[in-house]
Amino acid sequence: MSVAMPVRSPESAFLAARGELEGLFGERLSIARAVREQHANTTTWVAGEPPEAVAFPRSEAEVQQAVRICARHRVPVIPFGAGTSFEGHVNAPLGGLCLDLRDMKRILAVRAEDFDCTVEPGLTRTQLNEYLRDSGLFFPVDPGADASIGGMASTRASGTTAVRYGTMKDNVLALRVVLPSGEVMTTSRRARKSSAGYDLTRLFVGAEGTLGVITELTLRLHGIPEAVSAGICPFPSVASACDAAIAAIQSGMQISRIELLDEVQIRVCNAHSCLGLPERPTLFVEFAGSEAGVAEQAERFGEIVGEYASGPFEWARDAGERARLWRARHDVFWALRSYRPGASVVVTDVCVPISRLAECVTETKRDIEATGIVAPIVGHVGDGNFHASPLVMMDDPDEVARARAFVDRVAARALAMEGTCTGEHGIGEGKKHFLVEEHGAVAVGAMRALKRTFDPLGIMNPGKIV
Amino acid sequence: MSVAMPVRSPESAFLAARGELEGLFGERLSIARAVREQHANTTTWVAGEPPEAVAFPRSEAEVQQAVRICARHRVPVIPFGAGTSFEGHVNAPLGGLCLDLRDMKRILAVRAEDFDCTVEPGLTRTQLNEYLRDSGLFFPVDPGADASIGGMASTRASGTTAVRYGTMKDNVLALRVVLPSGEVMTTSRRARKSSAGYDLTRLFVGAEGTLGVITELTLRLHGIPEAVSAGICPFPSVASACDAAIAAIQSGMQISRIELLDEVQIRVCNAHSCLGLPERPTLFVEFAGSEAGVAEQAERFGEIVGEYASGPFEWARDAGERARLWRARHDVFWALRSYRPGASVVVTDVCVPISRLAECVTETKRDIEATGIVAPIVGHVGDGNFHASPLVMMDDPDEVARARAFVDRVAARALAMEGTCTGEHGIGEGKKHFLVEEHGAVAVGAMRALKRTFDPLGIMNPGKIV
Repeated sequence: MSVAMPVRSPESAFLAARGELEGLFGERLSIARAVREQHANTTTWVAGEPPEAVAFPRSEAEVQQAVRICARHRVPVIPFGAGTSFEGHVNAPLGGLCLDLRDMKRILAVRAEDFDCTVEPGLTRTQLNEYLRDSGLFFPVDPGADASIGGMASTRASGTTAVRYGTMKDNVLALRVVLPSGEVMTTSRRARKSSAGYDLTRLFVGAEGTLGVITELTLRLHGIPEAVSAGICPFPSVASACDAAIAAIQSGMQISRIELLDEVQIRVCNAHSCLGLPERPTLFVEFAGSEAGVAEQAERFGEIVGEYASGPFEWARDAGERARLWRARHDVFWALRSYRPGASVVVTDVCVPISRLAECVTETKRDIEATGIVAPIVGHVGDGNFHASPLVMMDDPDEVARARAFVDRVAARALAMEGTCTGEHGIGEGKKHFLVEEHGAVAVGAMRALKRTFDPLGIMNPGKIV
Repeated sequence: MSVAMPVRSPESAFLAARGELEGLFGERLSIARAVREQHANTTTWVAGEPPEAVAFPRSEAEVQQAVRICARHRVPVIPFGAGTSFEGHVNAPLGGLCLDLRDMKRILAVRAEDFDCTVEPGLTRTQLNEYLRDSGLFFPVDPGADASIGGMASTRASGTTAVRYGTMKDNVLALRVVLPSGEVMTTSRRARKSSAGYDLTRLFVGAEGTLGVITELTLRLHGIPEAVSAGICPFPSVASACDAAIAAIQSGMQISRIELLDEVQIRVCNAHSCLGLPERPTLFVEFAGSEAGVAEQAERFGEIVGEYASGPFEWARDAGERARLWRARHDVFWALRSYRPGASVVVTDVCVPISRLAECVTETKRDIEATGIVAPIVGHVGDGNFHASPLVMMDDPDEVARARAFVDRVAARALAMEGTCTGEHGIGEGKKHFLVEEHGAVAVGAMRALKRTFDPLGIMNPGKIV
């Protein structure tokens, strides 16, 4: 049941295609080493594997022609969004052509009455929200990084707002896709729901560019809430913070974000921005709704978590005050990067049923201590998803080996608790070895069969997922 | 790109399998004509095509063995839930074995802390909610009929609550499926979200039993709201009712149900239950939340729709009062069946972007008048989904022909407005001829390829979708 893979693209394959690709893209095809290296995996610890060339298409028709040329010559095609993925999704282990979609970032339609819009894949989420600002609408999925919408769809991304608005699977209504055959497919209509045939939209959301190149996305939008309140609260342990979060969610509150930073992460953020927060596990929470509603929710949240907390629940409605309270949460990634100069941030991404979250986080913290690594924890606790992020010197083989073993143990722990090895980052190259353990051989066999069905030549982002 | 289909199962194929199936099921295998006819399509106008036999498995292992026997002898397998589908999903155009899953209705686990449960496919939604009653949780998807959970997943069902809680696609976390090969596959873990590989769960939700037999479902549950308020309001036209609904939804209100009955449907309900409602297009609405919240929402709804309405918005929090107000909505299906004795209810199921809803409903009403048929309209207007239901004497070929032409025109109208021919009922046999128009030849080709990949022998519910 192995997927047909092109042999490592002999230089001759790309050389044969090169003339046609140059004819298509002109100066928008680059074989410069620096450009190729920039496109191999920018924010991850997975080692970079540059493509043989990078092209910058400006239209679906160009993507289609490029894919046809590559299919004819058996050259791998690697779709590239903003390069913010963590699992080597944009690596080119078999060489080939990287399609950088940054010039395909048009907003094709915003239909306020239907709460939807249609955009090109290279647009980033902040570009979209900037554009929408005066419409009263916004696109809620927020993975932190300013990822491209196409990349977010391809990794089934989510982030801090999933507890209220769901993930990309819930917010993509329809796609246009260039298939490995070069044909263009529309996955669905624009109706809010449909029972017409197999769900091709959800098949391509999370497919990590291995089944085709997304060239257009129709997205759900949401009304900007009338009012927002936000707050923070320290706890004596990560377990008590998780329990408090569960109690709040079970009470039926409409929480729009609920994030856990452990005491190590708070220390990292304090160091980065002189925040002076108590170095304790802390919940960051946000409510959205009517003016009266968010005040009521914040008061109620304070009451519910009071019996678990080790300090007062501090909250605010005013935008400036909210930004101050949430500062540490916003700083997480850059604070991590600067905390141990020279170190890479190795990101884990497990997600477990919420009843197992406290246990999973607590065991992981014990593991971190026993392993003797620095690995702050940030969790989207409303979903049961958390990231323990070892800071690793990549030139120290011993440290790398210990980090690798730790990453595998975290995944195994989540799987033993009926969880997943990746809540929102995807499989890429980095987590392929967990796939059979997570889904079983029959499901992984089905995934391989799906891959073969859509991409019999194995040219589409090879070496990822299956 | 045609799907491998078994030749119309020669009696000899089933005869060859019969001994083995009798050995497996004993008296739980029936070839009685009455039983076979009961299993061919119970609530639809699509003509019945009975299977050659009906079996009543009690376990996944029995389903697995039955599928293996049928695969060996090329006998079609038709999964059967509660038989409430409208599009001939349980018909057996090529004969074969119907697997009636009514004895597989165990509730395997309810995990209140995780807001999920695991059940067998034959359980109905009211059985599940009855069981959950004291847990403070409920399963929200409500298609009206007391459908089986497995059947609801297979048709990607929704209903009155989709505007708040989504459809089956949003409320199924994971499935166990017996594949046409006889292998058992788990589609996902129990984590609330995952980015681990292709979305097999969503591939089987809505697959109408054509890719395998669902034997277990893990479902999302929701907290029973603290308070519910409900109300009704008459309007001068269906267009003004739709516009009022859109205005309310755009204001960001948390509406849990919003249903439109046109004046014909109100007349039908008045006749059925002596309700004495004004015979005008009427919105039925429900809010769920805190005591204060639902009162605030109802007041606000009254203000928003006031400028569109032709009468007061009447609302209530008390359960008895709510039931009285919503009586007409609850009676719809049975009122339809009794309104024109001897007539079949022909159900259409289009769904359009909400901005086109008023136009689509208005044009459809004109069409009904011009055609000279009785076809009341009920709409889940929060989703843009509505049903115009001609009452047709099936022994009058002229009436049947006019109804068929009407059904096709309604679908074509929705497709022209970027909508779908089916919002929640599925394709089955009845809507196959719209599939290419709706999705295009490339997407339908991809669906056929998916079917071939999972079911190369074409034994699994043949003749449906593709």
